[in-house]
Amino acid sequence: MTTDVICEGDDLLLFLDSKRTFLIKVRKDESFHTHKGYIRFNDVIGRTYGGRVKSSLDVDFVLFKPTLSDYQKKMRHATQVIYSKDTALIVNYSNIGPGSRIVEAGTGSGVLTSALAHYVRPTGKVYSYEARKEFLEKARKNIERTGLMDFIELKEGDVTQCIDEENVDAVILDLATPWLVVPLADQALTVGGTFISFSPTIEQTVKTTTALMENEFVNVVTVECILRRIKVKEGQTRPETLMIGHTGYITRARKTGKRG
Amino acid sequence: MTTDVICEGDDLLLFLDSKRTFLIKVRKDESFHTHKGYIRFNDVIGRTYGGRVKSSLDVDFVLFKPTLSDYQKKMRHATQVIYSKDTALIVNYSNIGPGSRIVEAGTGSGVLTSALAHYVRPTGKVYSYEARKEFLEKARKNIERTGLMDFIELKEGDVTQCIDEENVDAVILDLATPWLVVPLADQALTVGGTFISFSPTIEQTVKTTTALMENEFVNVVTVECILRRIKVKEGQTRPETLMIGHTGYITRARKTGKRG
Amino acid sequence: MTTDVICEGDDLLLFLDSKRTFLIKVRKDESFHTHKGYIRFNDVIGRTYGGRVKSSLDVDFVLFKPTLSDYQKKMRHATQVIYSKDTALIVNYSNIGPGSRIVEAGTGSGVLTSALAHYVRPTGKVYSYEARKEFLEKARKNIERTGLMDFIELKEGDVTQCIDEENVDAVILDLATPWLVVPLADQALTVGGTFISFSPTIEQTVKTTTALMENEFVNVVTVECILRRIKVKEGQTRPETLMIGHTGYITRARKTGKRG
Amino acid sequence: MTTDVICEGDDLLLFLDSKRTFLIKVRKDESFHTHKGYIRFNDVIGRTYGGRVKSSLDVDFVLFKPTLSDYQKKMRHATQVIYSKDTALIVNYSNIGPGSRIVEAGTGSGVLTSALAHYVRPTGKVYSYEARKEFLEKARKNIERTGLMDFIELKEGDVTQCIDEENVDAVILDLATPWLVVPLADQALTVGGTFISFSPTIEQTVKTTTALMENEFVNVVTVECILRRIKVKEGQTRPETLMIGHTGYITRARKTGKRG
Repeated sequence: MTTDVICEGDDLLLFLDSKRTFLIKVRKDESFHTHKGYIRFNDVIGRTYGGRVKSSLDVDFVLFKPTLSDYQKKMRHATQVIYSKDTALIVNYSNIGPGSRIVEAGTGSGVLTSALAHYVRPTGKVYSYEARKEFLEKARKNIERTGLMDFIELKEGDVTQCIDEENVDAVILDLATPWLVVPLADQALTVGGTFISFSPTIEQTVKTTTALMENEFVNVVTVECILRRIKVKEGQTRPETLMIGHTGYITRARKTGKRG
Repeated sequence: MTTDVICEGDDLLLFLDSKRTFLIKVRKDESFHTHKGYIRFNDVIGRTYGGRVKSSLDVDFVLFKPTLSDYQKKMRHATQVIYSKDTALIVNYSNIGPGSRIVEAGTGSGVLTSALAHYVRPTGKVYSYEARKEFLEKARKNIERTGLMDFIELKEGDVTQCIDEENVDAVILDLATPWLVVPLADQALTVGGTFISFSPTIEQTVKTTTALMENEFVNVVTVECILRRIKVKEGQTRPETLMIGHTGYITRARKTGKRG
Repeated sequence: MTTDVICEGDDLLLFLDSKRTFLIKVRKDESFHTHKGYIRFNDVIGRTYGGRVKSSLDVDFVLFKPTLSDYQKKMRHATQVIYSKDTALIVNYSNIGPGSRIVEAGTGSGVLTSALAHYVRPTGKVYSYEARKEFLEKARKNIERTGLMDFIELKEGDVTQCIDEENVDAVILDLATPWLVVPLADQALTVGGTFISFSPTIEQTVKTTTALMENEFVNVVTVECILRRIKVKEGQTRPETLMIGHTGYITRARKTGKRG
Repeated sequence: MTTDVICEGDDLLLFLDSKRTFLIKVRKDESFHTHKGYIRFNDVIGRTYGGRVKSSLDVDFVLFKPTLSDYQKKMRHATQVIYSKDTALIVNYSNIGPGSRIVEAGTGSGVLTSALAHYVRPTGKVYSYEARKEFLEKARKNIERTGLMDFIELKEGDVTQCIDEENVDAVILDLATPWLVVPLADQALTVGGTFISFSPTIEQTVKTTTALMENEFVNVVTVECILRRIKVKEGQTRPETLMIGHTGYITRARKTGKRG
């Protein structure tokens, strides 16, 4: 990321504070209105990203170039969206990186899809399946905005019925019945590849684990990540009162050659 | 990752179960001995990765090609090593990816260094500072084994005194006094770039947060990740009895242009 | 607790479900109105506690005799109120029971006061200090409703300045500056007695611990209790999405004879 | 608790630090040996509880009068023992206090039994069932030492088959198949009384919850208590590295009159 200049047509993240940010398109001769006053885009064009601008009410806004996670926070959500703590662990456990080939399902809003695509650049690919056509269109719009479409193939289809790819490095699932996908995931994965599934309920996790054991996967492990935000201020430091107590369980496993 | 053939001189992960794995080098005419019998390398050479081999005691071992995380688990540790749950969040929060340029300190055993290098390939770079020369040599050996040295520059130096780089996308710290690094990190970062610090104690976190606020960083957030492993088995499912209760706090922030 | 008959003037807990309960007084010829219809008290008088009654909209309500915790949930709160998970641990750690004599401060709304009184019956006493007169009146009203006033002495006073009692079994604090109370608590406690303090912030906890060490208390331990509610239903079991992430830290210690 | 004098034949808690304590009987003319030197009982007899004594190696020990929790920590364990965090919540949720009548099963080592007895004194009773005769004898010895036997009736029997008592205030279970006890617990409880069950696995919890719903219990709630110990020291404050990650789930419910 190099510091560069804000141009007409650019996406811009107007940052007021951690909880109030606006992802907007820069349009010459127009303004953007907030409850803290409006900002003229003509005052912004030609400035460098990361700088500050004052609104008509003299309030400071920072002019950030949007990152992937900024886009993801603003993605229109057709479905329950995966949290970044879980995305982080899924990426880590999957052993993926630049060049990896991944089968993912379901696409949902495309949040996890775009995160995976971000890391497999510039030579990898995410094959993302979604059985519900209406979600696929919304996901496409969300992903296009992030500029990651070149590394993603969106596919309409039900992965409990068919996976076209072979020798993929990881199969990553966020859908209602992951255990039904295990045999096809086994076929699609390269030997040594990683299976990952995210599920909200413990019963889904038990069924998926049982299916993985039956299909001779090894290193079958389930974890739950509890993330606490800490309010840090000299003399007033404490974990936040209200927190997200649960999103889901992450189950991972590794494919091997079968017993002789 | 494509399935490929095991050759003499390769690194090999012999996998017995989740808790017993061996990272070894394949040597013609030799054997590797375990408490479950020995394995002749001549039985292994020419086989494909991911397959299984039987030891002299007829116990099944899987022949995995080592992943980065396999190498990291076996790195000789001169220092306390960061856990993968924390690495995962640091990577996610830092907004890095292929092409990113990162300043990291201290190098320690090189575990976090190699994880960062994995994600910035093929065009990015990790500038990793370590003030203690003896750790640097150990880290170099650890990292060379992972094949990621091309994306890392190991530097002997104290980041509380000097950071050579400019316009980096992220500064990532795992050292005793991160608050002393904040002013130099501010200079090294590109506008919009990310500062991240990992600290075991709450007092370090408070000092670092205070320094970030004084240096006009925005979006200053501290989190703690509590990871629970779940024992999943039909009729016996429960979180594990003993767990790692705490590793450290992760503080992150974003650099902006300064107030006029 | 024996099953008994509902009379005019009784307190009654109308229970619809875990989240919707009403603590009301039974009044002949009157009704109680809810969004699920009204209930005629004349239909309730003479019934036994624990039975069910139908509202005018044919919705089932249970007629519970209020327990102490039912009263506590409905106490009018002048201050932040302690959670039952923390009350439970405070009672357990304090080693109190029937006959114990306790100094408590501040009284606040009287929630912790009444819980302590419940356990020291019939021969113990809770001496509860509150520096702010207006809270004391509200607390008195709350406690009178629970019928536990005989086991409590409400005292207007600042425990950082003066504690009248001697040889008490426990000193239990829920106030802003517990470390200032440590020397007086030390004097008030019997040798072997328990000091307990509840504080929301970590800085309070550090100061209190330091004061306890300086005053030669032993077994100085701080804990935090994280309570998760689990949604249990065949096929849909999972921890609740939103939870209370933090209430406070509990520090406890034991008074000894001093070093010679 | 009043300060009193140590006599021959007394139980004594020798306290070195939070992790090293010794529960012993005072015997004239004898000594007690530790790795920090020995203590002559003749130096102890006639001293007051809570004082300090020096060992032959000049190390300070505190002479505490044992509390119930001191006894419980030293009870010989025939079975897995319930943690004090769970005991604390069970006591709190059960609404018991002086005078309560409780059915408990299984007795196990008597740890929970004695805790319950402590709170129902001086007029209540704990009816504790244990199906395995050999545990019952060990429990009896453990409980006798605590002096609480007057408030406990130990009964050999299987509560899935028979509960003799009626109109009890609480039924409290720590056994393998609590769901099988629900119908008999329903009969034994007074209307408005509390059912509580502690189970390590989630499958037990689901079955118990289902049985409670089928038997028209209300306010059926399951929680899990995660207790973190915090290392508190100026400049080094942090949660402890290793912690107990899970003991069990607590399910509670309240009996009502049945639907007409």
